[in-house]
Amino acid sequence: MTAHRFDVTGIGNAIVDIIGRCDDSYLATIGAAKGSMRLVDADEIAKIYGGMGPAIETSGGSAANTLAGVASFGGKAGFIGKVADDEFGRIFSHDIRSIGVSFNASPVKGQMPTSRSLILVTPDGERTMNTYLGISTDFDPAHLDRDLIRDSAILYLEGYLFDRPEAKRAFQEAALEAAKAGRKVALTLSDGFCVDRHRVEFLQFIRNGVDIVFANESEIKSLYETTNYDDAAAHAKKDIKLAVLTRSAKGSHIFSEGQDITVAADPVAKVVDTTGAGDLYAAGFLFGAAKGLSLETSGRLASLAAAEVISHIGARPAVPLDSLARQRGLIS
Amino acid sequence: MTAHRFDVTGIGNAIVDIIGRCDDSYLATIGAAKGSMRLVDADEIAKIYGGMGPAIETSGGSAANTLAGVASFGGKAGFIGKVADDEFGRIFSHDIRSIGVSFNASPVKGQMPTSRSLILVTPDGERTMNTYLGISTDFDPAHLDRDLIRDSAILYLEGYLFDRPEAKRAFQEAALEAAKAGRKVALTLSDGFCVDRHRVEFLQFIRNGVDIVFANESEIKSLYETTNYDDAAAHAKKDIKLAVLTRSAKGSHIFSEGQDITVAADPVAKVVDTTGAGDLYAAGFLFGAAKGLSLETSGRLASLAAAEVISHIGARPAVPLDSLARQRGLIS
Repeated sequence: MTAHRFDVTGIGNAIVDIIGRCDDSYLATIGAAKGSMRLVDADEIAKIYGGMGPAIETSGGSAANTLAGVASFGGKAGFIGKVADDEFGRIFSHDIRSIGVSFNASPVKGQMPTSRSLILVTPDGERTMNTYLGISTDFDPAHLDRDLIRDSAILYLEGYLFDRPEAKRAFQEAALEAAKAGRKVALTLSDGFCVDRHRVEFLQFIRNGVDIVFANESEIKSLYETTNYDDAAAHAKKDIKLAVLTRSAKGSHIFSEGQDITVAADPVAKVVDTTGAGDLYAAGFLFGAAKGLSLETSGRLASLAAAEVISHIGARPAVPLDSLARQRGLIS
Repeated sequence: MTAHRFDVTGIGNAIVDIIGRCDDSYLATIGAAKGSMRLVDADEIAKIYGGMGPAIETSGGSAANTLAGVASFGGKAGFIGKVADDEFGRIFSHDIRSIGVSFNASPVKGQMPTSRSLILVTPDGERTMNTYLGISTDFDPAHLDRDLIRDSAILYLEGYLFDRPEAKRAFQEAALEAAKAGRKVALTLSDGFCVDRHRVEFLQFIRNGVDIVFANESEIKSLYETTNYDDAAAHAKKDIKLAVLTRSAKGSHIFSEGQDITVAADPVAKVVDTTGAGDLYAAGFLFGAAKGLSLETSGRLASLAAAEVISHIGARPAVPLDSLARQRGLIS
């Protein structure tokens, strides 16, 4: 294994978030399950937008949020994804580059628009996403930056991209490329419904070439088709080299080759918007893993980053995570 | 004077704000005076955007912010302004309508894009604006909704629009229309440099047909070409029927036909972003004036709204101002 220049490179949807508040009753009106992500078409997104309150627009995308977090910790991060040559594409590109993430894709002209997600935040801070997938899903193996993948300690893959066969193939090729270079492959299951749509492929992919899997409770339960978290966790322990299971306020479990570690969630004065909680948890953990820190320290960095992002609107860190981590004595 | 259906109708630039943080040194690098608004072209805006941190996008525009504030207090508000048929135009239209402001303009196709302002927020919370004026300045008397103007207790005009002769003519016609219907005309001077560019016309306009003038310290000093606030205030008292002078943390002065009222600024735990402070001050005052409340109560509503908006990012209220005002016993 040769030295790497990047800590983490991720592949995912390049999305601009449109975040506004709504009451619980509005979720019922539009038929959305609280806390979930669903795909909507252009008509539906216009209808939902029309009924929600004033919004702000801010860059998002699950893996992209994670890489912004890795960069905020001081890690060297790269992103692979697609934007269109439009305003939202310029916003996405600016924001990810301005935090120091390497992002070299040229915007695509004259096809689909840049992807966007209408995020409805209920009074409890929970987010429900309605995503209109534009150009970002049009991803195939030709879009892989193989040099960047070989040059990164960890390749991080966003499960949402499993929704398109070509993108799934790209993931498989990317994972092979990383493995050949002696790099680690990490995957986030992204969403319970996403797991439901692709259970068999996810399991095959995990068993054949993934080193680290991130999942929350509903995702891991969906993967193993059980309603019991402990059952799902027991399966994960057997199946997955390094499983990182997040449980919101209950903290997280890390299982790795016989080690069972429980990490507490960091306290938050007020949960404003949970958008990006899982993404930033992954950021802290991946930063720690790429730097060779212990599983426990990596988990604590993860909890720190998740707590920061849910204390304000938007899915990217609002303050530099490296200084927060230094204040806590987690990094020097 | 017949009964009115609207409390306040405003005419101004329809702008989407792009708000990001920067250090004081970056303002020097780009040659921007802290706290000011300047007009930039497409090349310049791209250059400044490239060097600033991650940003969020949120609807703005001075008069539009004020009307959003009036609506948040429970007032009936209308906005007259121009957006293009693009993403930023859809964002602007959604946000202003979703808070209950009447906005009927059809988006304009195939000309200039929707206007936008790059807002750089320094660590002290002060905002410096770099505005790229697109379709919103292309305003002339034909764009006036004369029925709406006649139907509103107060017509509110944003001084920024004085930068174009056709828009200036539109203001004069709008003010005449309002006066003929027995309505009040209010004007904000918008920016010291804007006053500097149009001092003579502003003075003529104020003396000939404006009932209420809003100005901050630098604007009123610029209007009367003095470096001394007290001198400027003395001029304003003589010249202006109802002068409302804002002085940031020092509060505000209201001068009206012999009455001199000083209103304290509301305390703020942490000034996060001063964008919209003057706009929301005007919102509180205009709401009070339209409802026939006393000058002192109107001033206190104004301070309340300004304090709310500087405690978070963005120039629109984040919580309903009517409930805040009720908690304070300012309205019932």
